[in-house]
Amino acid sequence: MKRSLYHWPLDPGSREVRLALAEKRLTFTPLMLDLPADTEKLSQLNPSGRPPVLIEQQPGSKCTICESRAILEYLEETRPAVPLLPKSHEQRAEVRRLMSWFSDKFQSEVLGFLLFERLEKPLLGLGSPDAAAMREGKRYLLWHLAVMEELTQSRNWLAGEDFSLADISAAAALSCLDYFGDVPFEQFVSVKSWYVRIKSRPSFRPLLADHFPGIAPAPDYANLDF
Amino acid sequence: MKRSLYHWPLDPGSREVRLALAEKRLTFTPLMLDLPADTEKLSQLNPSGRPPVLIEQQPGSKCTICESRAILEYLEETRPAVPLLPKSHEQRAEVRRLMSWFSDKFQSEVLGFLLFERLEKPLLGLGSPDAAAMREGKRYLLWHLAVMEELTQSRNWLAGEDFSLADISAAAALSCLDYFGDVPFEQFVSVKSWYVRIKSRPSFRPLLADHFPGIAPAPDYANLDF
Repeated sequence: MKRSLYHWPLDPGSREVRLALAEKRLTFTPLMLDLPADTEKLSQLNPSGRPPVLIEQQPGSKCTICESRAILEYLEETRPAVPLLPKSHEQRAEVRRLMSWFSDKFQSEVLGFLLFERLEKPLLGLGSPDAAAMREGKRYLLWHLAVMEELTQSRNWLAGEDFSLADISAAAALSCLDYFGDVPFEQFVSVKSWYVRIKSRPSFRPLLADHFPGIAPAPDYANLDF
Repeated sequence: MKRSLYHWPLDPGSREVRLALAEKRLTFTPLMLDLPADTEKLSQLNPSGRPPVLIEQQPGSKCTICESRAILEYLEETRPAVPLLPKSHEQRAEVRRLMSWFSDKFQSEVLGFLLFERLEKPLLGLGSPDAAAMREGKRYLLWHLAVMEELTQSRNWLAGEDFSLADISAAAALSCLDYFGDVPFEQFVSVKSWYVRIKSRPSFRPLLADHFPGIAPAPDYANLDF
């Protein structure tokens, strides 16, 4: 079985899948996309034009899985040895509620502002970051961190007792902002200690080694004792 | 077991869950939210403030499931008698790829323009629809319909041989626009015939009876022979 993953370093969905593959001890060849240069190539792999894309190849068969949410569920179904979803239906729903929180709500209220201004705007040649949009995103980020603070105070991991896809989704999203040093962890003690635990997991190491072409990470990005 | 669903008539996620419940022959009490008036009530049910919310109650236990994607997977896991996901892992991934397509891409490229201008702007008192935003949304809609035309030409249902959550997600999204008569079905023969088949299913009947307070549906909205 040959497994490869097309990914983009600062795409939260790509980071989710890299983390899930590593947690499940599944080896893969990471194929880093160069966007926007690789736009056409990516559209041929996934009609929606979005990373990540997982390809599993065996003699005589090739399986292409698109969209992070579909890939995460696929890995959970086909490689259940290291489970990232709990057993109880109600707890699984809680994990998936939080996955939607980070892929939808956190995306539109926080990343849609901050990551767009910091990363996509310069890449697409749309000018420098807009101060009002940055303020709006940072204001929402504080609210999201307060919600996470409550969750991490009352639970061992984000969705309950065990490490799950909810932690992976949250860490993937937050780590994209942390690359720019945009997460005020010092105000959220419990979120910080949760993030330190995630950051220390072997699965996170490749993400901490990411160096986005032309944009250096913030000084504390790869620091486990920040 | 007492089952209720908090929903908003023109919310695609709410429509997905209403369709899935009906396809699975699960009875429920529909509790229609009045937004924005019920904003506070909804936030108490679901911290993200988004419909739908499913509540299953038995003597001594109450289970609250939030976010359409989590509810759909929950129903699939707990009520598998009428399956809405295929058996093969690869085909399940194809269904979920399309679910992400409609909840993310169609949402941001089409509904984010058209439904926002048509529905949310007047409701939130943000003025009348912006012609440029409507044009942008309609331009994208044509592209999305062309993609669906290809899929429905080569497959029995959207994701393959069997009716699935992919059809439910697509029909839920498209039907919100069709309420306003905004879908140019005549240009897409195969999509139209797919939509006629969906519209004719008993599960769709309650949606066709929806009458959003203050906004009458387009003349052909409930018409099976349009």
